[in-house]
Amino acid sequence: MSQKLPSTLLENAVNELAALPGIGRKTALRLALFILRRDADYADRLSSGIHALRHHVKYCLDCHSICDGDRCTICSDPRRDHSIICVTGTIKEVMAIENTAQFHGVYHVLGGIISPIDGIGPADLEIDSLIQRVATGEVKEVMLALSTTMEGDTTNFFIFRKLAPYDVKVTVIARGVAVGDEIEYADEVTLGRSIVNRIDFNDSFKL
Amino acid sequence: MSQKLPSTLLENAVNELAALPGIGRKTALRLALFILRRDADYADRLSSGIHALRHHVKYCLDCHSICDGDRCTICSDPRRDHSIICVTGTIKEVMAIENTAQFHGVYHVLGGIISPIDGIGPADLEIDSLIQRVATGEVKEVMLALSTTMEGDTTNFFIFRKLAPYDVKVTVIARGVAVGDEIEYADEVTLGRSIVNRIDFNDSFKL
Repeated sequence: MSQKLPSTLLENAVNELAALPGIGRKTALRLALFILRRDADYADRLSSGIHALRHHVKYCLDCHSICDGDRCTICSDPRRDHSIICVTGTIKEVMAIENTAQFHGVYHVLGGIISPIDGIGPADLEIDSLIQRVATGEVKEVMLALSTTMEGDTTNFFIFRKLAPYDVKVTVIARGVAVGDEIEYADEVTLGRSIVNRIDFNDSFKL
Repeated sequence: MSQKLPSTLLENAVNELAALPGIGRKTALRLALFILRRDADYADRLSSGIHALRHHVKYCLDCHSICDGDRCTICSDPRRDHSIICVTGTIKEVMAIENTAQFHGVYHVLGGIISPIDGIGPADLEIDSLIQRVATGEVKEVMLALSTTMEGDTTNFFIFRKLAPYDVKVTVIARGVAVGDEIEYADEVTLGRSIVNRIDFNDSFKL
């Protein structure tokens, strides 16, 4: 389907849609023809929705998650425990953690993780602002919830070192055999860690 | 992932993206966050591309396919045989037939097929304009290339009846066992038709 399309407007729209992740040219053409068939109102809502999202979205001044005002709903909620900060790489990870309903503190979104291969260093991430939040002395615990990859581990260690001068507890989310997984098929590193970090059986009922 | 999103702008964009065919809320969120991460230029190109497509695209005055000017590149090509019209349901079908490089005439896009269940009747389709094209007397053959469904057959028959008063040959694309298919697994109707409409072996090498 790399044929020339009969209209330059269609060609343009297909090219831009095909730049989205997971959308190939064939799917992009299907989406473009769908937009053509739908009422003009839908195309207006879709295009202005995309434009407004990119140009007018705001980021929370505290945690750098996206929000409508200056502070996100979590940071401005007095019922949340502001003495514990969960550090995540992306906004999507905040949503994933919120979905568990197991965390009642506040967040800090780094905006990525240290990844030399992608040219992302500590200076590109919101690490300094995290240190500043901790430096106020109001934070008791920083919980690191980055992806359990080498890049995530590197970032964890970097933050841990940066936080060393401060009187703050640094924790990291548990790594272990995923719920529903079979021991037989768990990889050795995960299984090994789950044994080293085993917990009291009574505590395992807490969730 | 039916959770409340942290920003109304994000919520809006996700809702509109999720209205696209084959895009669920989870994928829509991924696309929205991708748009947020990319430079503002891309969001501008995507949103204006969608807007321009819906508002400024033109339809060929002859065949109703989409194009940039008044006539599409096929209808305005003097090398195409204007005495044979291929009738299709959609623009995508025109592209599919053009891809075969086996048709050298011109097209007529109905804009759908008769489908009472979807509330689409003959008046909603470009059937009258097809009759008008034939009425000029310059058309020798109308080749029906609609989907081989019950709705397609109904539409074929409706057009065939409408064209009866005119001195025009009405043909329909061959139905038969698809190239590469095994006879054993072909459905009876298709196999039956392919037997009834068998062709001279010499003619089968034409492609």
